[in-house]
Amino acid sequence: MVALSDNLKINSARLWDSIGEMAKIGPGIAGGNNRQTLTDEDGEGRSLFRKWCEEAKCVVGIDQMGNMFAAREGTDPNALPVFVGSHLDTQPTGGKYDGVLGTLAALEIVRTLNDLNIKTRRPIAVVNWTNEEGTRFAPAMLASGVFAGVYDQDWAYERKDADGKLFGEELKRIGWLGGEKTGDRKLHAFFELHIEQGPILEAENVDIGVVTHGQGLSWTQVTVRGQESHTGSTPMAMRRNAGLGMARILQLVDEIALGHAPHAVGAAGHIDVHPNSRNVIPGVVVFTVDFRSPELSVIEDMERRLEKGGKEICESMGLEIEFEKVGGFDPVEFDSGCVAAVRNAAERLGYSHRELISGAGHDACWINRVAPTAMIMCPCEGGLSHNEAENISQEWASAGANVLFHAAVETAEIVT
Amino acid sequence: MVALSDNLKINSARLWDSIGEMAKIGPGIAGGNNRQTLTDEDGEGRSLFRKWCEEAKCVVGIDQMGNMFAAREGTDPNALPVFVGSHLDTQPTGGKYDGVLGTLAALEIVRTLNDLNIKTRRPIAVVNWTNEEGTRFAPAMLASGVFAGVYDQDWAYERKDADGKLFGEELKRIGWLGGEKTGDRKLHAFFELHIEQGPILEAENVDIGVVTHGQGLSWTQVTVRGQESHTGSTPMAMRRNAGLGMARILQLVDEIALGHAPHAVGAAGHIDVHPNSRNVIPGVVVFTVDFRSPELSVIEDMERRLEKGGKEICESMGLEIEFEKVGGFDPVEFDSGCVAAVRNAAERLGYSHRELISGAGHDACWINRVAPTAMIMCPCEGGLSHNEAENISQEWASAGANVLFHAAVETAEIVT
Repeated sequence: MVALSDNLKINSARLWDSIGEMAKIGPGIAGGNNRQTLTDEDGEGRSLFRKWCEEAKCVVGIDQMGNMFAAREGTDPNALPVFVGSHLDTQPTGGKYDGVLGTLAALEIVRTLNDLNIKTRRPIAVVNWTNEEGTRFAPAMLASGVFAGVYDQDWAYERKDADGKLFGEELKRIGWLGGEKTGDRKLHAFFELHIEQGPILEAENVDIGVVTHGQGLSWTQVTVRGQESHTGSTPMAMRRNAGLGMARILQLVDEIALGHAPHAVGAAGHIDVHPNSRNVIPGVVVFTVDFRSPELSVIEDMERRLEKGGKEICESMGLEIEFEKVGGFDPVEFDSGCVAAVRNAAERLGYSHRELISGAGHDACWINRVAPTAMIMCPCEGGLSHNEAENISQEWASAGANVLFHAAVETAEIVT
Repeated sequence: MVALSDNLKINSARLWDSIGEMAKIGPGIAGGNNRQTLTDEDGEGRSLFRKWCEEAKCVVGIDQMGNMFAAREGTDPNALPVFVGSHLDTQPTGGKYDGVLGTLAALEIVRTLNDLNIKTRRPIAVVNWTNEEGTRFAPAMLASGVFAGVYDQDWAYERKDADGKLFGEELKRIGWLGGEKTGDRKLHAFFELHIEQGPILEAENVDIGVVTHGQGLSWTQVTVRGQESHTGSTPMAMRRNAGLGMARILQLVDEIALGHAPHAVGAAGHIDVHPNSRNVIPGVVVFTVDFRSPELSVIEDMERRLEKGGKEICESMGLEIEFEKVGGFDPVEFDSGCVAAVRNAAERLGYSHRELISGAGHDACWINRVAPTAMIMCPCEGGLSHNEAENISQEWASAGANVLFHAAVETAEIVT
């Protein structure tokens, strides 16, 4: 008889080896990967993944968005499956672990269950969600979004890449258009392991992030209009300097986010100055303010303060200002039962852990809308991700995979 | 006998008509001009100007930088000439008056002297300086700079445009490489009429700017380095936001300039944010601080404060900062005698006038190094220049030309 005890672990070396094998497909230019969604390389990665899943005696189903489900059967023919997984597509200059760790750790669960001849009441399905990254076909998390009913499938098919190629055509071209109606496959719960993509766990030397929420996001594009004029011949008092207006609003953004410490964040990553000439006072500056918080009311408050404060700053400087909401999603609260399963698993296995709020979007954020969901995070070096230099240790990966294993198998229920 | 009395005026209609004729060469795309230096259009403009000068019985000489000198003889064979003029080249999307007004107003002086059969003791030479704008071949004011000994001629010849073409080759190609050694032609004084390119005269409803100084300039390129990281998954306290550092330094630049009111100015027109992505905290921001003042000690003080304050800001934010001086010139104090001649002329003619400091660089700033020099400014609409929408009224142009006329002819001395 097998119990969920602290000596029940995945095969760390096999997981690490599989991650290394997958990284050989679509190598990057600096040690990482370029395996963007629906490219030939994505197709090659999918084939390797299917081969591994079939070797692990799973039945692989493909839906009309190319999402892959590798199911290991349960003992109860009426029980819904527990989904585990993430994504295999990468950024154009992406790392070897973003998405891949969560997908192959899910496969490793099945391999370990096979090794130990453990049966579960519920089936376990290893999932590879299509186009999580969204760099080739925006938006990100497209196929999990269609699965969860957030996006319409026909609309998704019409998404175009930079060369004008359509998502739907490219899915067909690489041979991964499946027959299953997207979203028809029902599930009991979903667990996703992912690298943190932030600096907290490494800085605090903590093994496991128990993700309780996904931050909500608000992108406001701000346009400040002043008057282009000569930096030499325009007296200070007669200037309408859109660049200085932008500077004061960036300071305000910082103050607004700090006013909702510790979870809210705010910054502008995108700033375009016109005409951007050394001797011309900026006439127009366009920048995007990124506010995030796990609480919707906080996001709304930050948006209001930006609008009010931005207007006051610009009025006092003779500037005009416009606000346009160009992106956003509501905060996600993960399922308390699934979160507890993750916390219990970390505890049982003796890993240090802390609660985390996911700052980035993940497939789990959409799947949480249709089934109880939780996420597990493991540290990554320097918080670096979406970069070929992204790196994690085998120990970090194994800890995350073991917690995923315990949380998923506890939920799928071992049959003794 | 002709005296310098208030009824001695240039022919306003003829001046205005000539400006309109010149504007037909190298038309812009929005009502202005694209007659950049050493292009075929510049050659065509020069030919028209030479034709007009020869029709006004001037002898046209060309030096090895393509500077044009159209001399009307004086009665004293030993007297050095009074130079009057400006430049005929334009910005790629330039106006019809920047440079052109000063050059054709100088020609109009000669035409009027001919009409009235007035002789002067000193010769008067109408000058067209090559490449004042510097947009095709940097730096600006290149040929007056060689004339005044600021730049070496061989170095000037090696300046390249964006297509890799050399200044020296292009000067030859358009047929305006002269034989006169640059700088060999000696002068008694130089007067330059120019549009203000700033908003003061129009805002104060003043006809004439009596330019006493040229502002000194300091360009410091500032590089602020932080850490690129995800806007969602990086807590506020762990950010090293180069964009926020830049914002605080821009506020400091404003405070530094206001600390030297009313003449000092400061701003950043050029700001580049890397990687400039909505969900990435800026890792590096490069921007150029433009400080100007008519006093060298003030410029030096502003540079010091920027360096000290910038370092303090960055140290407190965990950022790195580098400063590089990428441009500058010392303040210019124009000749008190020439400035008095301008002021007297405005007074005599009944024009409202005020002292001005030139915020932009002009050929007169270099020529002031080798001979007594002064500048006259007339208003321009909204202070707008280096823009096809640049505009002035015929009345403004005439007032400026009349002041140029009186100041130059007083200096050249009417022979009765």
